[in-house]
Amino acid sequence: MSSVPNNIPEKTVERLSEYRRTLLRCHKQGITHIFSHVLAAMHGITAVQVRRDLMLIGFSSDTKKGYDVKVLIDFISSILDSEASMNIAVIGMGHLGQAITRYFNSRGLKLRITASFDIDPSKVGTMVDDIPCYHMDEFEERVQQLEINIVVLSSPTRVASELVIPIINAGIKGVLNFTSKPLNFPPGIVVENYDITTLLEKVAYFVKENEENNLDNNQQ
Amino acid sequence: MSSVPNNIPEKTVERLSEYRRTLLRCHKQGITHIFSHVLAAMHGITAVQVRRDLMLIGFSSDTKKGYDVKVLIDFISSILDSEASMNIAVIGMGHLGQAITRYFNSRGLKLRITASFDIDPSKVGTMVDDIPCYHMDEFEERVQQLEINIVVLSSPTRVASELVIPIINAGIKGVLNFTSKPLNFPPGIVVENYDITTLLEKVAYFVKENEENNLDNNQQ
Repeated sequence: MSSVPNNIPEKTVERLSEYRRTLLRCHKQGITHIFSHVLAAMHGITAVQVRRDLMLIGFSSDTKKGYDVKVLIDFISSILDSEASMNIAVIGMGHLGQAITRYFNSRGLKLRITASFDIDPSKVGTMVDDIPCYHMDEFEERVQQLEINIVVLSSPTRVASELVIPIINAGIKGVLNFTSKPLNFPPGIVVENYDITTLLEKVAYFVKENEENNLDNNQQ
Repeated sequence: MSSVPNNIPEKTVERLSEYRRTLLRCHKQGITHIFSHVLAAMHGITAVQVRRDLMLIGFSSDTKKGYDVKVLIDFISSILDSEASMNIAVIGMGHLGQAITRYFNSRGLKLRITASFDIDPSKVGTMVDDIPCYHMDEFEERVQQLEINIVVLSSPTRVASELVIPIINAGIKGVLNFTSKPLNFPPGIVVENYDITTLLEKVAYFVKENEENNLDNNQQ
């Protein structure tokens, strides 16, 4: 993440996004109020953490009946969502790019994937769930025309570096990078590098640690 | 992440995984030594951070020529990798599950996806990149037979909760959950909840913040 002065820490932003999805599910089920410890338990965290996060965004509530679900959804949305539209493009429509496009746009969220890009002639000109795939040659022009601010990078890792300049030139403001090459952008462009390999290696490491701790405990 | 006593912080584990992939690329290109500030720049972080991470795992090096790339790869591997094999199964072979399987096994890593599971008759019995897809009814039996310790959850969100009990019963030790339902497991099972929606909403939030800061600066 670029170093941007912000009052809300990254982890809190992540949790707000997660709380909102849980609250939306609750709302759908007709639940009108929820206690902080119930919301916390649904996320495997403490009630203190939930209350701290909501305090950070200035939300206070009647604690007798818990939080009003609808009011809290709207409050979190007022923090997270932009009034201007945020349009997303996917670069690289291999399996991962297609999966992200189909998955994301079926969720009924405010953020929308509105275009995709590739250089493979078998992909350019096709549609995935109504999202057109353009040639990378048209990237700058289409980004401006379609008012795209964010790109998801799901290209092969070996071409990731070559995409930095076109992304900067097109005026993109945020990048979610799923390739295994960490990318650097100038200040003013937000970057999240998320390689699935890192996530799996992290899980594997803590599994190993758990097993070693168990062995130690059994030997004591 | 479950609360497990560990000396190495989660974020350091993530970075070690990332350093190793960068170092492997350097090694392939014939680079034998690398300075901490070069490794740092490739990840958009400070040299102090790199040195602190390596100090945490007890790695010290000749600073005149920088780190020996091969030695550092082996050292990080000795920390991250398990001597026992770690086998991974994917539950839910929709677009995301297929993308993860194809992507991950093409990387030549020690961790391997060795099986997948679904309930869709059009998927059960098929192969994706030599990985067989079994019916979820066989989950417990296959996990034991194939010595699977970790699962990647890429099922539809609405069935995620139903998978918790089978995963516990089968003796799985680590879960990487890509559904949008955060899942809780008993202590001893490592869980990482990673919803792509959270990542995109986070990028969108910081893009919005950047734009608001720019407006403020321009008005001053």
